[in-house]
Amino acid sequence: MARHIYSCPLRWSDMDAFGHVNNVVFLRYLEEARIDFMFRLAPGDGSPSFSGGSVVARHEIDYVRPLVHRHAPVTIESWVTKMTAASLTIAYEVKDPEQVYVRASTVVVPYDLAAGRPRRITAEEKLFLQEYLDQEPAVA
Amino acid sequence: MARHIYSCPLRWSDMDAFGHVNNVVFLRYLEEARIDFMFRLAPGDGSPSFSGGSVVARHEIDYVRPLVHRHAPVTIESWVTKMTAASLTIAYEVKDPEQVYVRASTVVVPYDLAAGRPRRITAEEKLFLQEYLDQEPAVA
Amino acid sequence: MARHIYSCPLRWSDMDAFGHVNNVVFLRYLEEARIDFMFRLAPGDGSPSFSGGSVVARHEIDYVRPLVHRHAPVTIESWVTKMTAASLTIAYEVKDPEQVYVRASTVVVPYDLAAGRPRRITAEEKLFLQEYLDQEPAVA
Amino acid sequence: MARHIYSCPLRWSDMDAFGHVNNVVFLRYLEEARIDFMFRLAPGDGSPSFSGGSVVARHEIDYVRPLVHRHAPVTIESWVTKMTAASLTIAYEVKDPEQVYVRASTVVVPYDLAAGRPRRITAEEKLFLQEYLDQEPAVA
Repeated sequence: MARHIYSCPLRWSDMDAFGHVNNVVFLRYLEEARIDFMFRLAPGDGSPSFSGGSVVARHEIDYVRPLVHRHAPVTIESWVTKMTAASLTIAYEVKDPEQVYVRASTVVVPYDLAAGRPRRITAEEKLFLQEYLDQEPAVA
Repeated sequence: MARHIYSCPLRWSDMDAFGHVNNVVFLRYLEEARIDFMFRLAPGDGSPSFSGGSVVARHEIDYVRPLVHRHAPVTIESWVTKMTAASLTIAYEVKDPEQVYVRASTVVVPYDLAAGRPRRITAEEKLFLQEYLDQEPAVA
Repeated sequence: MARHIYSCPLRWSDMDAFGHVNNVVFLRYLEEARIDFMFRLAPGDGSPSFSGGSVVARHEIDYVRPLVHRHAPVTIESWVTKMTAASLTIAYEVKDPEQVYVRASTVVVPYDLAAGRPRRITAEEKLFLQEYLDQEPAVA
Repeated sequence: MARHIYSCPLRWSDMDAFGHVNNVVFLRYLEEARIDFMFRLAPGDGSPSFSGGSVVARHEIDYVRPLVHRHAPVTIESWVTKMTAASLTIAYEVKDPEQVYVRASTVVVPYDLAAGRPRRITAEEKLFLQEYLDQEPAVA
């Protein structure tokens, strides 16, 4: 049960007027981690892929503690909690060695951009995703 | 059972490289609606208020259909689905007269910035919020 | 010598950790004003237009005084300070009835997206832009 | 004549609907480089510093060629082109080993946050900045 690890750099402008990383910006961090994760699913033969086309259907996100801008990146661990024929649920933890800042999950639907509609997860994709499958959710 | 109505202007830059309003940006729209809603809760006597200090504890957001930038604003309807001694759940629908784009909910915790800790909802706030209480969630 | 008037709504998140509208965000405001201005140049017959394709070649921007988030929009006045065969210089003032916050100018190059290269300003576009031509720069 | 080197990670969301890093986002990159540069000026004894308080008075920015999102960061070289008693002009080049994307400059005014007004550059700051002084502008 592997986990995808993404080292996410912060920007000073991620903070809002309260001096903390704004709650919305964490979704940006998850997007970066997800793109990095999905990119490894790209078949490389031009066929539809998660990296080329996928749609976010749902997010759940729990804010555990505030984060202030600093030079060190945060770590985002991602894994797969659920796979159906045509959707994927990714769980995440945003953390550093000391503590967890955010727990979240996203339902992603693979999309065939050319055909303009959702598509099924391919056998090849399933094989790759299986490695990251762990039904324990990040959001308790 | 009143609903708070916020008319939310879009920006061209809200679109991502796929040419749709990016999923993260909808959380920005909800933030604007929430600030507009909470602002009416400000007591005006300098005592702690939702507008002055509150923390987002959790979001749930369902993307119903894609939205493309246009000059007309979208409408955000907000109401209260749950009130506890020290937290508030707000539900939202992002829509226009034709259709719904997003359904979401946020758990907000009022915060005493001076004391640096969460605080209880005051009787005065409860009175105001009661008007918007409707236990039907936006997220089905 | 007409001026294009754009009423620009602020967002709470436009403020940075210092509690002022961040200097970078003003460029966003100018983008919104420029898109609104250029949109009126769209020929409506599918031929290349400023709204459909144009590239920013240069910005100059002077920050006159800080701006704090508030519910009232700011006004952006735009006009044309220079027209060459293949570029346009737009000047702007970001202000409200009391004061000026920012003065700026942008060099815009019309672009033929299909051909993938800059193009000349058409006679029809010149006619429209002439009305807004005023060589007085916003940046003193 | 040293130059400050900042390795700037891109985010997928830095691209706009045209599929290029948006012109406004480059100013964000410059902000990150500038904060990293100024941070080294912090005296560490709690006295006012560029990192703690400074105001952007002016930007000039030339877009040389478009940039598309990729995993490798871009490099931002910064140096000082002008120093007066109470302001500093920083020049930048945003580039990778193959080419230059943006040339820009910013006038920064050190600010005493406690006193609420601009302040003079200290002798200690001058000494540090002198090393980076090179009057050749980035903007040709």
